Amino acid sequence: MKLEELRKKAMKKTKEKITKELGRRDKLIVHVVKSIETIDKTSNLLFEQLRDWYSVHFPELWRAIRDVDEYLSIVSELKTRDNFTVEKLKPLTKKAEEVMRKAEASTGTALATRDAEHVSSFASRIRKLREERKELGNYLEELMKTEAPNINAVIGPVIGGKLITATGSLRKLAEMPSSTIQVLGAEKALFAHLKKGVASPKHGIIFQHPWLHSAPKKKRGSIARKIAAKLAIAAKVDYFKGEFIGDKLRRELEEDIRKVLQKQVK
Amino acid sequence: MKLEELRKKAMKKTKEKITKELGRRDKLIVHVVKSIETIDKTSNLLFEQLRDWYSVHFPELWRAIRDVDEYLSIVSELKTRDNFTVEKLKPLTKKAEEVMRKAEASTGTALATRDAEHVSSFASRIRKLREERKELGNYLEELMKTEAPNINAVIGPVIGGKLITATGSLRKLAEMPSSTIQVLGAEKALFAHLKKGVASPKHGIIFQHPWLHSAPKKKRGSIARKIAAKLAIAAKVDYFKGEFIGDKLRRELEEDIRKVLQKQVK
Repeated sequence: MKLEELRKKAMKKTKEKITKELGRRDKLIVHVVKSIETIDKTSNLLFEQLRDWYSVHFPELWRAIRDVDEYLSIVSELKTRDNFTVEKLKPLTKKAEEVMRKAEASTGTALATRDAEHVSSFASRIRKLREERKELGNYLEELMKTEAPNINAVIGPVIGGKLITATGSLRKLAEMPSSTIQVLGAEKALFAHLKKGVASPKHGIIFQHPWLHSAPKKKRGSIARKIAAKLAIAAKVDYFKGEFIGDKLRRELEEDIRKVLQKQVK
Repeated sequence: MKLEELRKKAMKKTKEKITKELGRRDKLIVHVVKSIETIDKTSNLLFEQLRDWYSVHFPELWRAIRDVDEYLSIVSELKTRDNFTVEKLKPLTKKAEEVMRKAEASTGTALATRDAEHVSSFASRIRKLREERKELGNYLEELMKTEAPNINAVIGPVIGGKLITATGSLRKLAEMPSSTIQVLGAEKALFAHLKKGVASPKHGIIFQHPWLHSAPKKKRGSIARKIAAKLAIAAKVDYFKGEFIGDKLRRELEEDIRKVLQKQVK
């Protein structure tokens, strides 16, 4: 009986330990980032299909409306061209007059109500999926603010979240030297460098930040090094739950980048 | 002024002609079939992502519940393990007791309500997308019954719809010889046959019918030929809006197949 109790206690302890390690919400960051990526990919596929379908009825609409959300709201709310009026279109798009002109001159086939119902219901589902994506974007921001506030302050929730996702956890990111963080997400270019001797990659995921992609090519290497250095510190502080120094890191980084940009290229 | 009127009339006539040709609802069949395929593909991707995410909290659930709809209903309705009771699980799955046992012994991390809300809302979106797929399946059936009743009677709405989709329109399918219909969808194997001289494909999309995939290998060529022959007739009757002879074609086909299956293979 006592042995049984001991065994139960040991089991409970182990479970708590596993639960605790898993309990860090940074794992959720990984799943939210991946879910956002999956929704982006799938909602694009679905939208292309919807557009092909609706083009039977109104092939000219996509030429007028190049915004996915506006397009979806018109299809899901107004359904067929004969429901269109400038008044009804106005809350949905800035190009109400243009859409109305194109609708009146459309060469698309008429669509019976029962047929229109299906394409419009398909459009609403895609809209909802895109709304979910926005909600997950907000959730990611909230997770980053609480789980990785320093990384978040340095580089923002989207790129910060992608860095954690690329490594799989905050712990792994915190263990990485800044040189690895710098090229995270550029693994393909890195292998090409190691195997074929082409130039080593200067930046990976962090390249998505305007600091890098809007900088002159020759400066990017130095800027990427500066960013990665601050991220390496931020990740360690976040993982060990140190005090928030994100704003300070961010200010220093901005100063570092200013200096790099001012420096004369020899 | 008179010339202007004439021009307008001519324009109107041309537009009507285009509209009429496009107006055949078989074009819709093509889009519905493609939309169903896109939803199948994307909802699988989304579900895999959702399952990975929810496995942080309850990794053992997928081992108990292998049914996607049951899994989604549990996640979206009950959210976290501590909400689970056998009573609440019973309307959602036949394996209520097993899920409850696994929930009590789970090694997954606890999930705060605010975190659970997001994964459960993601699950509901995927559910809705799968509902849309079912609705489109019914719509396809309705379209096939009105637009291609003979093809529908011979081979059913799913395979029939795929055949029309593979060719792009009912007209094109109606123009095809039965030997082409037989290998529609097996283009890759057909090219390999023509280029490399490997055996010619004996069936394409129609292979998805149990008549073929449950038949002995040696009989499949003859059965496919019989099916394609009836489909070629059905497509022509459907395109030219002839009288419904689908039931007769189906009966003859079943008889043909019975004979092929009875014949001794030499």
